[in-house]
Amino acid sequence: SQQYKIAVLPGDGIGPEVMAEAMKVLDAVESRFSVRFERTFANVGGIAIDRDGKALPEKTIAVCRESDAILFGSVGGPKWESLPPDEQPERGALLPLRKIFGLFCNLRPAIIFPALTGNSSLKTEVIEGGFDLLVVRELTGGIYFSQPKGIEGQGAERTGFDTMRYSEVEVERIAHVAFQAARKRVGKVCSIDKANVLSTSVVWREVVERVGKEYADVELTHMYVDNAAMQLCRWPKQFDVMLCGNLFGDILSDEAAMLTGSLGMLPSASLAEGSFGLFEPSGGSAPDIAGQGVANPIAQILSAGMMLRYSLGLTEAADAIDRAVEAVLDAGFRTADIYQGLEGETKTDTSGMGDAIVAEL
Amino acid sequence: SQQYKIAVLPGDGIGPEVMAEAMKVLDAVESRFSVRFERTFANVGGIAIDRDGKALPEKTIAVCRESDAILFGSVGGPKWESLPPDEQPERGALLPLRKIFGLFCNLRPAIIFPALTGNSSLKTEVIEGGFDLLVVRELTGGIYFSQPKGIEGQGAERTGFDTMRYSEVEVERIAHVAFQAARKRVGKVCSIDKANVLSTSVVWREVVERVGKEYADVELTHMYVDNAAMQLCRWPKQFDVMLCGNLFGDILSDEAAMLTGSLGMLPSASLAEGSFGLFEPSGGSAPDIAGQGVANPIAQILSAGMMLRYSLGLTEAADAIDRAVEAVLDAGFRTADIYQGLEGETKTDTSGMGDAIVAEL
Ligand SMILES: CC(C)[C@H](C(=O)O)[C@@H](O)C(=O)O
Ligand SMILES: CC(C)[C@H](C(=O)O)[C@@H](O)C(=O)O
Repeated sequence: SQQYKIAVLPGDGIGPEVMAEAMKVLDAVESRFSVRFERTFANVGGIAIDRDGKALPEKTIAVCRESDAILFGSVGGPKWESLPPDEQPERGALLPLRKIFGLFCNLRPAIIFPALTGNSSLKTEVIEGGFDLLVVRELTGGIYFSQPKGIEGQGAERTGFDTMRYSEVEVERIAHVAFQAARKRVGKVCSIDKANVLSTSVVWREVVERVGKEYADVELTHMYVDNAAMQLCRWPKQFDVMLCGNLFGDILSDEAAMLTGSLGMLPSASLAEGSFGLFEPSGGSAPDIAGQGVANPIAQILSAGMMLRYSLGLTEAADAIDRAVEAVLDAGFRTADIYQGLEGETKTDTSGMGDAIVAEL
Repeated sequence: SQQYKIAVLPGDGIGPEVMAEAMKVLDAVESRFSVRFERTFANVGGIAIDRDGKALPEKTIAVCRESDAILFGSVGGPKWESLPPDEQPERGALLPLRKIFGLFCNLRPAIIFPALTGNSSLKTEVIEGGFDLLVVRELTGGIYFSQPKGIEGQGAERTGFDTMRYSEVEVERIAHVAFQAARKRVGKVCSIDKANVLSTSVVWREVVERVGKEYADVELTHMYVDNAAMQLCRWPKQFDVMLCGNLFGDILSDEAAMLTGSLGMLPSASLAEGSFGLFEPSGGSAPDIAGQGVANPIAQILSAGMMLRYSLGLTEAADAIDRAVEAVLDAGFRTADIYQGLEGETKTDTSGMGDAIVAEL
């Protein structure tokens, strides 16, 4: 049977709990599809700071290097919040991982499952039947990584500064991902920028426009980021694929995720050229409910599904995971975060949800 | 009677129509409070491009220079959308006005009037009783104006770049505005940054923290911009004053405004040191409904009210305008954009709404 190496980085908070359920699901995939996932666990985030002195220890990087993909839990918590930003679990683990492994492409689906529209803070009329959009975010450039960046000067003139920049190749690469994704979906790309103010956005828009010509079957529109932040909460269904730079993608993908009302359900993929990728839930480490066994493991399980699809090429198994999750939701299983007390719902906990999904597989 | 000079810049789209109602209101204030507003009209935006060749003609600048304040309508429309960004009505008029007149402080209230909660796309439970937050946005610095900014290189390496920077003085100045505003409100400032990624934000946060020590009676919290974009649509009532840099303020103030569901109701102020300021509706020029006499003039009228309050020091008259607007809403008058077809509502048009407010005064 085919064999894959996976770096498993559960991290902090609810990370280890929900990761345990994803492991059960991988076990089930192994037996049903006769593949093998050789899993190496490694520390990341706060637990790595405590045990190894930094959020992303060398040995964790080494484990990732030897793997076909990284399955990431979540990091951070109050314990490490007073560290300098650079050393904190989130910043100190995620940004270096993205850079080291060239994870330039971040896919963040924001989906309301029709059965869960009630969880959104948006009115039912606005989201009737759910919505399904995909933020394609550039992840290794823009204002996150460009130089120069720092603090200079003294006293009142002491100044913090950062550089936002995008080159044509960088924009082209991520634009192709967005157009190709749109082809498999509704066929619309809305590219987000602030071309009325930023030179970076002027280049961004020109290149996206040019790449768009190669995808005559995909409808391309452009929207300013401020308007996009408005339109998302006015009528999210107008969007299919939103193509964003690093910073705008950070902001809008979180807004879109929150609007679904099911943060605990949303996976994400961060992909390098080739097949390597990192897969993690969109939500955070939720320290407030950690250790209670009540967290929703679906985002982690769907992240494992994205890993099978994008890094390991196991489309059939990935589809099976997606279908199993849907079936379990349709059957009414709900963790606390998505439980609405409606008829036909059965409240369950982290492992109950994992077991139900495994049973479906 | 005391006399004030006002530059009136109606602009494009619905601008002239709603400005006409604001003029009626200023007339009413003149007779009730024995003041005089000497008004000089000038072209701005698309109409200025058509008549004078650019969005902000020299003579308009001259009129503004000779005035105590600028009352601005709105600019832009499809006719001018294919111009280069720099020359377009919005970009070409607003950014230079901000820079020339040092309008560093942008106040953008986002208020749901309790009677209008139905207009929000948020669920009624989420916004029961309305909400009332104020975005204090730095307006002459950050990534909008910092240098270097441009496009360099050739071919695939052609790169657009912008610089985000804030110095301690710049942050201090706007932070004081936020804390002082909070004192007159609920007493909470939430400062928005991305200090886990941006050096600019590291300085921003340090300075805000330090300035906050001078306002022991105001509660200060910090929030990352991505989280703020989420929290706004989850539970907007958690915010009182949101203190933002230029770019984050642009995005979040628009999101907050949209969440109120009453864009046509929201005024804004852009203030210089001293008393000079520019006052304009938060919404756009709405070319789709321009010329039909149906636009909601309330944002423009409340902007005139903010002008009386902040630039002219006419607190009593400003209060009277705010109260008149509330009374008219309580009496059930609604323009099309806020008409819900409920019992007790009377549908009216632009001038009908203006007249009703004048009658209240
Ligand atoms: C933790 C932080 C550096 C990170 C980001 O800003 O990219 C996070 O918000 C995310 O979106 O993955
Ligand atoms: C027109 C544009 C340059 C402007 C801005 O980004 O500041 C507008 O969006 C605003 O918020 O006033």
